[in-house]
Amino acid sequence: MTRGDDDAGWLRAALTLAGRTRGRTAPNPNVGCVIVRDGRVVGHGWTQPGGRPHAEAMALAQAGAAARGATCHVTLEPCAHVSARGPACSDLLVTAGVAHVVAALEDPDPRTAGAGFARLRAAGIAVTIAPPTGPVAAAARASMAGFLTRRAAGRPHVTLKLATSLDGAIALASGESRWITGAAARAHVHLERSRHEAILVGRGTLDTDAPRLDVRLPGLVTRSPRRIVLTSAAPPAGWTAIATPAAIAGLEDVDHLFVEGGARTAAAFLAADLVDRLLLYRAPILIGGGVRALGDIGLDALAAAHGRWRAVDARMLGSDRVEVYERERVASAAAITGATR
Amino acid sequence: MTRGDDDAGWLRAALTLAGRTRGRTAPNPNVGCVIVRDGRVVGHGWTQPGGRPHAEAMALAQAGAAARGATCHVTLEPCAHVSARGPACSDLLVTAGVAHVVAALEDPDPRTAGAGFARLRAAGIAVTIAPPTGPVAAAARASMAGFLTRRAAGRPHVTLKLATSLDGAIALASGESRWITGAAARAHVHLERSRHEAILVGRGTLDTDAPRLDVRLPGLVTRSPRRIVLTSAAPPAGWTAIATPAAIAGLEDVDHLFVEGGARTAAAFLAADLVDRLLLYRAPILIGGGVRALGDIGLDALAAAHGRWRAVDARMLGSDRVEVYERERVASAAAITGATR
Repeated sequence: MTRGDDDAGWLRAALTLAGRTRGRTAPNPNVGCVIVRDGRVVGHGWTQPGGRPHAEAMALAQAGAAARGATCHVTLEPCAHVSARGPACSDLLVTAGVAHVVAALEDPDPRTAGAGFARLRAAGIAVTIAPPTGPVAAAARASMAGFLTRRAAGRPHVTLKLATSLDGAIALASGESRWITGAAARAHVHLERSRHEAILVGRGTLDTDAPRLDVRLPGLVTRSPRRIVLTSAAPPAGWTAIATPAAIAGLEDVDHLFVEGGARTAAAFLAADLVDRLLLYRAPILIGGGVRALGDIGLDALAAAHGRWRAVDARMLGSDRVEVYERERVASAAAITGATR
Repeated sequence: MTRGDDDAGWLRAALTLAGRTRGRTAPNPNVGCVIVRDGRVVGHGWTQPGGRPHAEAMALAQAGAAARGATCHVTLEPCAHVSARGPACSDLLVTAGVAHVVAALEDPDPRTAGAGFARLRAAGIAVTIAPPTGPVAAAARASMAGFLTRRAAGRPHVTLKLATSLDGAIALASGESRWITGAAARAHVHLERSRHEAILVGRGTLDTDAPRLDVRLPGLVTRSPRRIVLTSAAPPAGWTAIATPAAIAGLEDVDHLFVEGGARTAAAFLAADLVDRLLLYRAPILIGGGVRALGDIGLDALAAAHGRWRAVDARMLGSDRVEVYERERVASAAAITGATR
């Protein structure tokens, strides 16, 4: 990037905006946009729930005439395709007269895929793209993991949540599981739920715990995701059923899936290698015996267990600790970066 | 403390020295001593392997005439009892003419128990004792946990080590357990072994894994602790057998016991509430199924599991993480602080 530090800083700000509607824009990406002129923000925006307006359209509407000659920082290549729901963002940027577009990633959508940048350049707008191997591009890929996983793998990005004791139990042998973790950890789970289009549990968990799986945080009660149950039987009212983990590919308008258990369902997703992100809540207690977090995942040798999970975040939530791990996927990472293009 | 910050700093230095022979001084406490005159260290010492010479004797021998008028910082009240193996340290300090003794803790040994301080004061030496509820006293209690647990509870201080996957397994269902953690974590285990007079495993682990349980670190190969097996059968050559966890009380010259498993042995110690410190090594892998870290510990309700373990330390060892927890013991903590004296 030509003016690296400044550009990266504004792109980070745009990524923060992009996080606002994570889990509510499928099948569109959640994008953020910051328009800067003479060092001041004149417009900012993010993809609205349902996918429209796009981030650039929102930011341009806010900037008005101030967009002329400004720099537009956006987390994904501006779209090149006109839809019934609105004009192409690359056309909007040309019309508004911005001087420079700084983007974190190219758009893998074949309707754009470089055509957005080409249209901007053809109109005389300078285009800067973050280095694909750099930290800003990595942060952008994490921010739009749902959209990118859907594009690269044809299925939602999957987070598996486990809440265990130090010895890896999720309940007493009696089934008692309320509560292993404390109030802060449970509130964190609700926040995570709000960032996913859908939540999935196994049939056993549905029957035993009758979980509500909704978001019970002040101001976020309307954000409760769709509820999905892994079963070959008919689902209860208000629930969608899928028979196998692989069937998540067919879930429409779901780019982020939150799998909450139980042990057999968690194991089924892991055995199918369909977990991208592991969210592990641990309480400082020992249970001993009891119900373990995971059933058989088909592991034959210890060597095969290593090198699959990378710790990316951790924090204390009261006396509990949450750890975040991401699945190392060398092949699909290359596909996502578009490094072969 | 009168000159709080300076005193605390020298006591911390003395505590570091005290750690050098942790696990090799039973039944004596591992004590550290720093003698300071005009802001400079003129002598330092720590309890020697086997318990003698005491820390003060070593430091005074080093200081020689420089001890006159100096301040002696020591992690435990100087002893008041003469033994066949040497004179009382309080007498040595009087003879050397130190001006001031700063101590972290009173000695609960009934042969001293305040008599050491009294003898110093009677000789005109100023005596300062760290506040029992303050951080220095707490660090001193942790440093001498073996000696203090033996005094307060009549048994060794017990550390339970667990090395697990993220889902709490210690082996595959096939029994394969080498290795879950990496080289750095395993070296850390060897260092921990060197700080205990004895290591204990269950009969099943002895028969299945034939563990060497020795210290294989450069410079520490002579520090391998005694090996103890939990069994009612006769032990193999070189091993001591005890039939129940409670029998640890009868282990002579063992003030620090390191319990390494397996799952049934770990559970037996936890069920008997005989674990004081939990050392949890965790590798970033998932096993699913497999052998769990703990058997039944007799827990009836989740509420009883909470509030028992306090996180006191954690660090990364390569890609593994070690966490240290201490058992919260309100009653015996009061006994150890001597708060009622």
